[in-house]
Amino acid sequence: MKLLKDRIRKDGKVRAGNVLKVDSFLNHQMDIELFEEIGKEFKRRFADSEITKILTIEASGIGIACIAAQSFHVPVVFAKKNQTKNIAGDVYTSRVESFTHGRVYDIIVSKEYLRPEDKVLIIDDFLANGSALLGLSKLVKDAGATLVGAGIVIEKGFQTGGELVRKSGVRVESLAIIDSMDEETGVHFR
Amino acid sequence: MKLLKDRIRKDGKVRAGNVLKVDSFLNHQMDIELFEEIGKEFKRRFADSEITKILTIEASGIGIACIAAQSFHVPVVFAKKNQTKNIAGDVYTSRVESFTHGRVYDIIVSKEYLRPEDKVLIIDDFLANGSALLGLSKLVKDAGATLVGAGIVIEKGFQTGGELVRKSGVRVESLAIIDSMDEETGVHFR
Repeated sequence: MKLLKDRIRKDGKVRAGNVLKVDSFLNHQMDIELFEEIGKEFKRRFADSEITKILTIEASGIGIACIAAQSFHVPVVFAKKNQTKNIAGDVYTSRVESFTHGRVYDIIVSKEYLRPEDKVLIIDDFLANGSALLGLSKLVKDAGATLVGAGIVIEKGFQTGGELVRKSGVRVESLAIIDSMDEETGVHFR
Repeated sequence: MKLLKDRIRKDGKVRAGNVLKVDSFLNHQMDIELFEEIGKEFKRRFADSEITKILTIEASGIGIACIAAQSFHVPVVFAKKNQTKNIAGDVYTSRVESFTHGRVYDIIVSKEYLRPEDKVLIIDDFLANGSALLGLSKLVKDAGATLVGAGIVIEKGFQTGGELVRKSGVRVESLAIIDSMDEETGVHFR
């Protein structure tokens, strides 16, 4: 997606440790007009698929998923990272190791909102080691729902997540795949 | 806002300890068409105000803020609850006590995304004890930006937050104010 890649080139900042800072437009400050174009692109790529629900994970997936949902006309469910008072009762749960935060946590979704009849599109901002995406996929599988695929904004193609998830049989559509990046020369797309 | 109140009456569930579960449409599963109407209502109420940025807090404020931003044509910034690798450098910080989660945490916003020239509308799903809203207000004040007001989806009018925040001089527009609720008779709006 050219608009996105241009934006990453312009405003993305490469930091030591393979960190790509895109917090000026994607995951801290959010450019909603860009999100609208991202949502339309996901719709274009999954136009052939029946989708009844979008699943994402807090926090930075939520904004993209909500705007994308306007193109699909379906509700969004976000997996929570912590048990709260407000989700009592039965939940699906899965374990995720965050590349960005450097820690392991459980994610949960109430069983009420993932049903066997659901055809689910997962949406997230980043795909790196694949742990979040595999965790979300497990929630869909545990619910007996159908996983249609995953729409990712930025895939770090030099990490193993993309290959891992695709090998597991999941259709992954990434709008920008980064083959390499460094602080001197910036981002190189596939 | 009648559409919202009707939805709370229909799908909201009152639980012991003054917990209102609206996770089927507001803060776990999210009804994007309802969010669009909520966004338009915020725009109607703040039509007289110049706004350059919407500020919210992860996680459940993000979806509402992003959809509302389409009516205001401004970017959204969400305050983060944890320091991450991806926000290095200078941040504004504030302390929040969560009613729902029963714990205290720090929220942060990068100084890059709250500027003295910003005219900020805060948007959040709930107003209860007011701690999150006061914490967000402090971030705006610390940035030297102008706080235009706060758009709240559901205010628990029987808790002290609404009065506390309004007395501090902040314009608060709540789309549904609950005067009382119990498990037997449900929700009673102001």
